[in-house]
Parts: sequence; structure tokens; C-alpha cells
Amino acid sequence: MNKSSFGNHFTVTTWGESHGKALGAVVDGCPAGLSLNEEDIQKFLDRRKPGQSRYTTARKEGDLVEILSGVFEGKTTGTPISLIVRNTDQRSRDYGNIAYTYRPGHADFTFDAKYGFRDYRGGGRSSGRETIGRVAAGAIAAKILETLEISFYTYTKSIGPVKIESFDAEEISKNAFYMPDAKAAEAAGAYLEECMKNQDSAGGIIECRIKNVPAGLGNPVFEKLDAVLAEAVMSIGAVKAVEIGDGIQVSAMKGSEDNDGFHMENGQITKNSNHAGGIMGGMSDGSEIILRAAIKPTPSISQPQNTVTDSGEETSLEIHGRHDPVIVPRAVVVVESMCALAIVDALFSNMTSQMDRIQEFYQK
Amino acid sequence: MNKSSFGNHFTVTTWGESHGKALGAVVDGCPAGLSLNEEDIQKFLDRRKPGQSRYTTARKEGDLVEILSGVFEGKTTGTPISLIVRNTDQRSRDYGNIAYTYRPGHADFTFDAKYGFRDYRGGGRSSGRETIGRVAAGAIAAKILETLEISFYTYTKSIGPVKIESFDAEEISKNAFYMPDAKAAEAAGAYLEECMKNQDSAGGIIECRIKNVPAGLGNPVFEKLDAVLAEAVMSIGAVKAVEIGDGIQVSAMKGSEDNDGFHMENGQITKNSNHAGGIMGGMSDGSEIILRAAIKPTPSISQPQNTVTDSGEETSLEIHGRHDPVIVPRAVVVVESMCALAIVDALFSNMTSQMDRIQEFYQK
Amino acid sequence: MNKSSFGNHFTVTTWGESHGKALGAVVDGCPAGLSLNEEDIQKFLDRRKPGQSRYTTARKEGDLVEILSGVFEGKTTGTPISLIVRNTDQRSRDYGNIAYTYRPGHADFTFDAKYGFRDYRGGGRSSGRETIGRVAAGAIAAKILETLEISFYTYTKSIGPVKIESFDAEEISKNAFYMPDAKAAEAAGAYLEECMKNQDSAGGIIECRIKNVPAGLGNPVFEKLDAVLAEAVMSIGAVKAVEIGDGIQVSAMKGSEDNDGFHMENGQITKNSNHAGGIMGGMSDGSEIILRAAIKPTPSISQPQNTVTDSGEETSLEIHGRHDPVIVPRAVVVVESMCALAIVDALFSNMTSQMDRIQEFYQK
Amino acid sequence: MNKSSFGNHFTVTTWGESHGKALGAVVDGCPAGLSLNEEDIQKFLDRRKPGQSRYTTARKEGDLVEILSGVFEGKTTGTPISLIVRNTDQRSRDYGNIAYTYRPGHADFTFDAKYGFRDYRGGGRSSGRETIGRVAAGAIAAKILETLEISFYTYTKSIGPVKIESFDAEEISKNAFYMPDAKAAEAAGAYLEECMKNQDSAGGIIECRIKNVPAGLGNPVFEKLDAVLAEAVMSIGAVKAVEIGDGIQVSAMKGSEDNDGFHMENGQITKNSNHAGGIMGGMSDGSEIILRAAIKPTPSISQPQNTVTDSGEETSLEIHGRHDPVIVPRAVVVVESMCALAIVDALFSNMTSQMDRIQEFYQK
Repeated sequence: MNKSSFGNHFTVTTWGESHGKALGAVVDGCPAGLSLNEEDIQKFLDRRKPGQSRYTTARKEGDLVEILSGVFEGKTTGTPISLIVRNTDQRSRDYGNIAYTYRPGHADFTFDAKYGFRDYRGGGRSSGRETIGRVAAGAIAAKILETLEISFYTYTKSIGPVKIESFDAEEISKNAFYMPDAKAAEAAGAYLEECMKNQDSAGGIIECRIKNVPAGLGNPVFEKLDAVLAEAVMSIGAVKAVEIGDGIQVSAMKGSEDNDGFHMENGQITKNSNHAGGIMGGMSDGSEIILRAAIKPTPSISQPQNTVTDSGEETSLEIHGRHDPVIVPRAVVVVESMCALAIVDALFSNMTSQMDRIQEFYQK
Repeated sequence: MNKSSFGNHFTVTTWGESHGKALGAVVDGCPAGLSLNEEDIQKFLDRRKPGQSRYTTARKEGDLVEILSGVFEGKTTGTPISLIVRNTDQRSRDYGNIAYTYRPGHADFTFDAKYGFRDYRGGGRSSGRETIGRVAAGAIAAKILETLEISFYTYTKSIGPVKIESFDAEEISKNAFYMPDAKAAEAAGAYLEECMKNQDSAGGIIECRIKNVPAGLGNPVFEKLDAVLAEAVMSIGAVKAVEIGDGIQVSAMKGSEDNDGFHMENGQITKNSNHAGGIMGGMSDGSEIILRAAIKPTPSISQPQNTVTDSGEETSLEIHGRHDPVIVPRAVVVVESMCALAIVDALFSNMTSQMDRIQEFYQK
Repeated sequence: MNKSSFGNHFTVTTWGESHGKALGAVVDGCPAGLSLNEEDIQKFLDRRKPGQSRYTTARKEGDLVEILSGVFEGKTTGTPISLIVRNTDQRSRDYGNIAYTYRPGHADFTFDAKYGFRDYRGGGRSSGRETIGRVAAGAIAAKILETLEISFYTYTKSIGPVKIESFDAEEISKNAFYMPDAKAAEAAGAYLEECMKNQDSAGGIIECRIKNVPAGLGNPVFEKLDAVLAEAVMSIGAVKAVEIGDGIQVSAMKGSEDNDGFHMENGQITKNSNHAGGIMGGMSDGSEIILRAAIKPTPSISQPQNTVTDSGEETSLEIHGRHDPVIVPRAVVVVESMCALAIVDALFSNMTSQMDRIQEFYQK
Repeated sequence: MNKSSFGNHFTVTTWGESHGKALGAVVDGCPAGLSLNEEDIQKFLDRRKPGQSRYTTARKEGDLVEILSGVFEGKTTGTPISLIVRNTDQRSRDYGNIAYTYRPGHADFTFDAKYGFRDYRGGGRSSGRETIGRVAAGAIAAKILETLEISFYTYTKSIGPVKIESFDAEEISKNAFYMPDAKAAEAAGAYLEECMKNQDSAGGIIECRIKNVPAGLGNPVFEKLDAVLAEAVMSIGAVKAVEIGDGIQVSAMKGSEDNDGFHMENGQITKNSNHAGGIMGGMSDGSEIILRAAIKPTPSISQPQNTVTDSGEETSLEIHGRHDPVIVPRAVVVVESMCALAIVDALFSNMTSQMDRIQEFYQK
């Protein structure tokens, strides 16, 4: 697929810059007959909204979505769904001082290298605001998965050095960090206070678990389900590592430890364990899919940093303004959205894998 | 791209099963005028050959490549390059006992789930032998990169718990593990002896460093260079995690630690550090690209394992035959090949990013 | 590419229905640094506007385009260009009577067959209004071609049985039919009067000639330049045939008549004739590219037609309302737009065809 | 898709040159469980074989296909099917005299323009022999369609000025021209004798009719079924025009003549006529799909032609050797193959168009 598109069968194309007129997405390949309204999408967008706690930016972003096409009388028509969110809070002056200075940890330098110049307002296309389009599309993908009873737990596993030590699904939406462990959330808060006091920022780890994915999705060679998920999640700006199942730990395990044996349970072939994270040989095995993404600390910090201008002068830069000291909580729904998009694509692709099922489909 | 293809501009399609007549690849989009012969490709294939040490399988695989098309008078013609490696050592009887039993850690179960049945001879399409096509294509990609002075170090960073502690480029090709640290290689050997004695296997970590990649390759949103590399490397059978730069560590770092500042050096804008691993905002920044892949232990082990048959009977399975106790050394060139394919694709894609460079190209 | 997208390197995705809130397009892969403003696009859109003569519908469609992203300080940034045209004249009542009756010659029946239901307002996605997105994108493609001195003549070659008999480029924009022959335009007017009197409609032929296309664009096998142009133009709703060069006539010619020989002219290899229409073996040969599209008569006519309802009752249908008795003149710019999109895509694809030109590109 | 590939869901990639070691194709996306053997494919290949009458070249091309992968125990496995045909009759000396002279009507000049040089042996990649890969893949597509009871009539409609005047399906395979009219075949023979006496060649028209295609295949905008068919057929070397249904004639028809009304027949919604050729608004309507391709006369003729060398010298060229005076009969199966590939792709794409059918598919 192309530079700004994801998915071969259920395709999202996002567009828009941080401080342009609007941001949005076009979703092509959504089947006809899915009930869909703006509220379905807004619910997802609200999960990435800033200003919900003192650990996220104070910018007010209404981020109200409008469906411009592809839905008629409350149902999708099978034609492209165009989604738009108008930018309302475009205070360009906040960013004026970085028009010609390369912010460390940002895409400013590489953008100039690729394109020769850039929209310097708030990171332009490389802003986290671009994820609005992904999340809006992800909401539709999630709705499709819901009709197939495929569901998600996506949550923060760590903030800086603070890791969760227990899992309570109910807790996830109760704290500012989407952590399934109230105690860890409290400790994360304390850690962030410290970071903010030092004009610094933090990263973390997001985990996504997907239940009830049918076995056989994905492919044995290049379009492996894990490869597509890795691409999907690594395409989120701040992600620097992706793990499936036991992930990096497998490198130190023995075959006898890592292999998931099988047994019978209620007449079903069932795995004895899930080190593989639900994917074997690039295809789903029917058990829970488990994926983790490592998120880097917010690069915009207000302590002085050494850098250069685009004309090659060395300088020191302090980035003020409204920035999240940690983006992990807001990225939770972005990770979930990307995973939902990948799973829907794999579901659709998989429908043509057996000749007799195709015959049956068309004989109806 | 499709299930068995990788790359949008420089596209490889692999085909073939472990115990079929042959395996191969078609490379489409290779520019005309590249000097290429079978030896260029054979050199790469020989790096993945088994039987080179006592830690790799004793199967004899000649794996001699033949170029069937796309090269004329020693140069590529711009048309598809078809590469074939005949299977010579097809002792099916080695695998006969697993025709109806699901091997733990393998794709047997998921293959059946997706396709309804499978070629059970040696893993069929899910065999490590499929990577022959990738490595053959990777050799061509690497040759293109060579003409642009882009070069690789790819090596084993750890085997099981044994990690390298020093880096000596010369050492890489001197030991059986492609480790840049002779001492670590020795320790890895000892560790593997232990594993083999216990009828067990080991995993490890492979690191790939790519020098001299021009800044600006990749894209700011979905076709990010790191996302494409992650997809490329995660599409290798045994990989369960991919890291870029500091990778998973960034989650515990602070912004002030993770950000790479800039300074001037010999009139060039230069990064103070390389936590980002050469990719910022999805685009190369001109510094070394650094990627790591975590490889799981070989799933084929000869100690008894609990599993089931495809008709749902519980059973115990011992896998005998010739299997690598660790596949990490042989996977080194596979990781390098996938990275080379991804970088060439990004180089080609990038040629249309600036209007004035396009005009210049066509005014010649 | 996907269902609603065209182009691999310069990709347009259109969205929107006739009577939805808006229509638009996202253009991805436009190089950075192209001067672009809304007027550049509006000029193209105005060429497909109705209400310009008595032979086009009297509907008032402002069709004002807004650029929502991808342009900064008057230049494209290399990121997706989102274009939107709001629907203002949405008188659904005009179409109310066809909500459940299949209009002959329209996509009503096939839409229901594919999707299970449809947006029946004005043809929904199958309306000619969908071409707004194509034309808006085509304007950008044409602007790129202009910088490379590639230019178009696109005009009406016939309306019903009335054919042009002379070619005067200046005349094209002077008559309501975009015919390069004033006399033929007059005759076409008379013919249409007759059609309208009989509550009937007419079709015609559009010819597109493209000058100064560099030799070597396209590909020798599947992505042939003529195949891509055929796909591009056949994707316009009313087109039922596409010809390149001498087109259908070649079937009755002899090799000695059809072959274009070569001679030298001003030191340049030059064709003696252009029966091939500028494309040999799927690649441009440097001479004028010549393409024709046959457009069917407008299917909406007000004389009674036999048809059925979606519940299977036979009925007679008279379609009243504001319909073009001929859509050929308005389709001229649509054909030109699709050709421009195809040529830009071929230009971009072609940049990687020779190794030494790639080396040169990156050595700068 | 890429330069040498066709199809998004059922993808064929062809490779090979006229005088290289072999030609072939990789088919990716074929569902598992289809019965397939080499004879199924050979039957198709034999239809394009030369040497079957005095009107086709006397070259002996065995063209025996070998299946290298993707089939196990007589059934497709869902993995790529690699097909190879070895070149046996590679008398390069036949073509030696054209190594540096541009043959009129061939791709020699454009190949050099694109790639800087070319494999001049027998047209290299631009040879008609490339279609071996298409036909081999087309045979698999046709086998899939057969299981869905979709069938073809493909035949020669005219040779030069000689047109069929009657249709007898049985007759098609009885004469050397695949004409459904014995009298016309006789006249075509006489016409060709004349051409051959004058060292000249002829073209013609091929018609393809596809029965029993379910309604709803294709898409309303860019991936229209007719657009994809046009691309498919125009990608055959000698095709210069493609028509659907009444084709070019529609331009002179009136709406009242061209519109296909509907009536009820045996409880089914049925079209009164089929001017549209089975495709309305880019989607199949359930009636017969009708397509025609205009084939140009064979460019290789032995009368002297004016041309130039690749170093820019004017010269006269006589092309001797074994060339078909008309390629139309051998192209019949190529047209059928490309149509079969396009229809299978549309069938697979269409399976995700309705949400409730997807739910039903996965609830099994």
C-alpha cells in the first residue's frame, strides 16, 4: 500500500497536519450493512483526547468527527467512508520559535532531508494529531470485530520504571494511565510528578490482548499476521520496539520452555500455554493474541537541549508550550486501533483461503 | 503487497516448499544495468547453508542457484529475475511420523486451520528453507546498495543467555555463530553443548547495522522506514520481537536521555548520539540504522512433548532427525537480506519526494 | 490498488456520493515543492461544471474546492493533499421516485446485487458527481506535467453520428461541445435538439492527445502504459470502448500499413507515422500519445421505459428532472484527468528503470 | 500491482524472455483444495502453440509445463504455484541481424529508451512467448471458474476484413482460426494466402463471452470490472482497442436504444437486451459478459521496411525467419486467460462486500 495508507482489503488513508484546517481519514473496503454513526467513532476519539488529567497536555482539542460519505440511513453502504475532524485550536504562535531549529527527538531534520522543506507548525504531518485519522478508522474496524465477537484489552503495562504487578480489567478505564493496577497507576503518577519537576518526560509500554480471533488468519510467508501487526504498531510515531507473546525473552529460553504443547479440552484442540502470543508461523492459532509496544519518552521537553538550525548554526533550544509529559496513556487507543485495522484486514484476506468455502459462498 | 511478495518498488515473490521440487524467487523492479551473476547470489546463499559446524544441521543442502531470466550478457535487463534452487535432499521419510501430529512450536496446526490441509513434508511452505528465496533476492538488493556505498554489519548478539561483550568486525565470519566476540562465541558453544545433551535447543538475538543510508528514506506516516523494517524482519519465521535503536529500553528512559541532540561536524549537521537507531519520525536521519531481532529457540527438539493429532487424539511426540539446535547463525543472512530489501525499496520510493529533483531527472 | 484508488506512485482516492454532504479526493505521493492553490484546481473543475449551455443540466453546482491539507505557504509538502467539495444543491425529492425502481442503463441493479442495498439519491456513489474528485486530482497531475512541458489536447470527436472534419485547437474551448470544428459543433447542436425533442439522449467520442511524453514510460508486460490508460479511462462510468492510436482499425490493416518505420530528423530517431498512437510494446515512444473513449448516451431519459422494482414488480419508468441530454462535453476534462493521473504515475515509476541513473540521483 | 504482476487477490507474476533458459509464472492467492495437475495447464498451453496450421509459425515449441510448488497430492495447498516452461528451441541466429536495428512495430526502440539496452534475442521480454506464463496461470483461473460453473466462449470474430457471419460454438475448435463460422474461416484462409504472397501480415478481432458470472462483481469507481478487464486485455502485446458490449457503437446510439430495460422471467429480474455487455456501473449484472479486443497485424514482415539502427543510421530491414502471418488465432487463449484472471480476482474481492455475509462466513 501507499505512504499514507494501511491495509489491503480494509484500507485506511489518513491525511492532515497538526495545524492545518482539518485532519481525517478515508476508509475504503468497509462492507455494506454495518450500523455506524458518529458516536461510535467519537467514543474512540475521546480515548485519545488530551486534557483529561494533569499528565496530558492542557490543549483543548474538541476533535469532533463528522462522517462525510459512505453511510446512508445509519448503515455503511460499502463505499468509502470519509471522516473529518476540523482543527479548532490552531495557535501557531506556540510553535513559531521552532520554524528553523531542529527539535531533538522529532522528525524536523528528517522531514527537511526528505522533502526539502516542511510545515513547521506543531510538527505538521508528523504530529501526534495525525493519529486522529487512525483512531477514527480503528473505531470502525473495532465495530466490525465486535460483530464477530472479537474483543480487546489494551492498557499501559509500564510508565518509565513503574510496572503493573496485577491485572484488573475494570481498573483500566478508572485511572489516568489506563493501567489495570491502581497501585501502579499511583506510583506512575508520582514518577511523572518527578519528571515534570525536572522539565523531563517519560515513556512506557503498552500491551494489547485480542480475544477470540479465529485460527488461521495471516499468512505463512510475507503477510504474516505478526509481521503486519508489527508494521501497524511500529508505524505509530513513538514506538521503538514491538514484541509478540514472550517477545524478546524467547531469545534466552530453551525450546522445551518456549514450545506451546497441545491437549484436548471440551473436544477442542487447545494449547497448554501461550508463549507464542496467539500466532504460530505467521497465522493466528485461536488463543489470545498478545502484543507489546515500547513507547519512547515525549521528545518535547523544556530543559535546554543542544541542537542546530536548518542553516547549520549550533544553538540551545527550550521547548515550552503545552506538551504531554508522557504520551503512553493517549497512545493506548492508537495501538488498539492499529491492531484492529490489521485484524480486520487479515479476516477479509482469509476468506479466500479454501476452495470449498468459496464455492459454498457463491452457491448461496 | 500480496501474501508471498515483499516490496512495492523492488518486489520479491518467493515460492517453494521444503520437500517440493525446487524453491525460488522472482525479483521484479530491479533496474537495468546492474552487473549480476550466479556467484553474487551464491555467496549470500552459502552464508545460510547448513552443515558448516556441529551446531547446524547435518543435512547436505547444495542450494545451488540458477538465474533463469532477467540477466543478459552479465547485466540485469530491468525485467523480472527468476531464481531457482532445486531440492536435492528430499528424504521424506525423515518427516513421515509427523504427517498427522501437530509439532509444538511449529505452523502445523495453524496451517491446517487456514487451508484445511497441508504439505506435511518438512514443514512445507513454513520450513526455514523458504528463506532461500529471500536470501537470493537479498543478495541482489545488497549488490544495488553496494553501488551506493551502503553497507551492513549483521551478527549474532546473543545465543541463549550468552551475550557479546566486545565488537570486532573481523571476528564475525571467523566463528560458527557469526559473533563479533571470540570469547562469547566460545561460551555460546559450551551453552549449546549443554542444550544438545539435554535434547533441547536455544534462541538468540541478531543485530543489523546499516551504514551510509542517505537521510530522508521512509515516510512520515504508514510506510515509515522502521515500520517496513519491522514487517520485513518479523516476517522471518522465528522472530518474536523487533527493536530499533535503543528499542525496548526507551520505555524506561527520560526524554533528556533518549533525545539525540545535534551539533556541527566538518560543516555537517551531526547527531550527538544515536538512541534513535538512525530513524526519526519514520525517516532515516543519515546515521547508522540499528535493528535487533529476537529469535526463538528451534522448536524441533527430541525430548518428548505433549501434543495432539489432527484427529484430536492426545499423544507424545519426539522429533528426531537432523535439526539445528540453534538457527540464529543461519538466520543472520536472512535478517540482512530482509533489511537490504526494505532499504532498496525505500531508496526507490524516495526518488519522487521532491518536485525539482524530478524535473532535473527528466531534463537530462 | 484498492477499489476507490488509482495509481501506485501518485495515488488518488476519491470518496463521496451525489447527495451526501460532500465529495472529495485524497492525493498521496505528490512531490513536495509544487506550487499549488485552489484556483489551479478550480479551473479544472469548472470545465466539468453543468449549466454552461442548454445541452447540459440546469442544476446549479457551485463545486467550489477547498484544499484541507498537504499545501503550506503555497507549495505542496509531499504529504497527502485532501480536497473537498461540499454538496450544496441536494434536492433529494428529484430522485425520490426511483428509490425502489431500477433505472435502465444505471448501476441501481448491480449496486443492490453487490451491497444488498444502496444510497438511491441521485445514483449515490455511481453518480457522475464522483468524477469531481478525479478532476480535482487530475488538475494536480496536470500541473506536474506542465512543469515537465507535457501538454494535452482533449476534445469531442463526435456527438451521436456527427463527427469532426477539421481540427482547430483554438475552437475547442469556444463551443459548448469542446469540438475543434465549429461546423461540427453546430451540427451536433442540431442533432441534440432533435434528441431532446424526442425525450432521448446521445453519446459520442472523446479524443485525448498528449504531447512531449518522454520515451520509455510504461512497462513491457502488465503495467503497460496503454493498459493503464485503458483502465484509467474505462473506469469512467459511461465509457464502453477505449482505443489507442489507430485502435479498432488495426484489425483490418496489413502489417505494411500499420508498422511505423523510423528515420532520422535533426539528429533524432523519428517515426515516419504514428499508427501506434505513441505507445510501442507498452512503453511510450516519444511521439504523441493518442487515445479515444466511446461514451454511451445518457441513460436518464424521460420517455417511458420498461423496468422492474427491487421487489420484482414490472413497471414503466419516466425519468424527469435535470439531466444532460449528452454528457460527452462534461466528460472531456474527466478523460484528460484520468490520462494525466496515469502519465504522472508512469513518470514516477520510470525513475528506477536504470541503475546508473539511480546512482547519479543519489550521488548529488 | 507491480510491473510484472496482475491481480490483487489472485495474483500472477510472469517472468522470462523469448530466448532465455525458461519462462514461467508464479500464481499467489490460489485457494487450497483445488484439484490441479500439469495436464490441466498443458491443455491451455496447447491452444497457443504454434505449428498447428500453415498460418502459424513453423517453430517447434514443445512448451511443456512443470509445476514446481504449491500442489501436494493432486491439490493446491494455498501457497504459491510456480510454473515453468523450459525454452528448447533457442536458435538465436535467426534474430542476429536485428541486434542493433529497430524493427518497426516492435518494442525494440522503446525498450532501449526505458532500460538503456535490451535482450535483442527474439524480442526478449516483449516476445509473444511471455504469454506462456499468462496462459499457464489462466488455466488455473479457468479451473476455479469451472467449479463455479462460469464458462467461456472465446473466438476470432474477424481476420483482416473477413468477419464471421454466423455463430456455431462447435465450429470454433475445428478450424485453424478458432472462428465459429466455417465459411468465414475459409475466406480468412484465402485472405491470409494473399497476405503471405505479398510478404505481409494481418490482424483481427477476438471476442470473449463469459457466461454465468454472478451479479455484483467489480466495483463502482476505480476497480470497475470493465476497467480491470480492459487493463487485462490491453496488456496483451498486440491489442490496440478494447470494447465492452456494444462498444464503440454506443457513441452513435440514442439512450432509448442503448438502455437495457428489465422484466421478470421465471421469478428472476432479467434484462430485455444486453447492449451493456453484462456490466453496469462497473459491476456485473448477471447477464453474459461480452468483450472484444482488436489485434494489430504481426509486425514482423519480410518486405523491406525503412528504419534506423540504435546508433542512428538509416537503413532498410527485411525480417525473415518463422513468423506468424497472423497472431489472432494463437491470441484467443491469451485473451481468455486474461479475462479468467480478472474474473477470479473480482470474485475473491467481492466476498467482503456485505457485512452479514462475512458474519455468516465466520460463524461456521
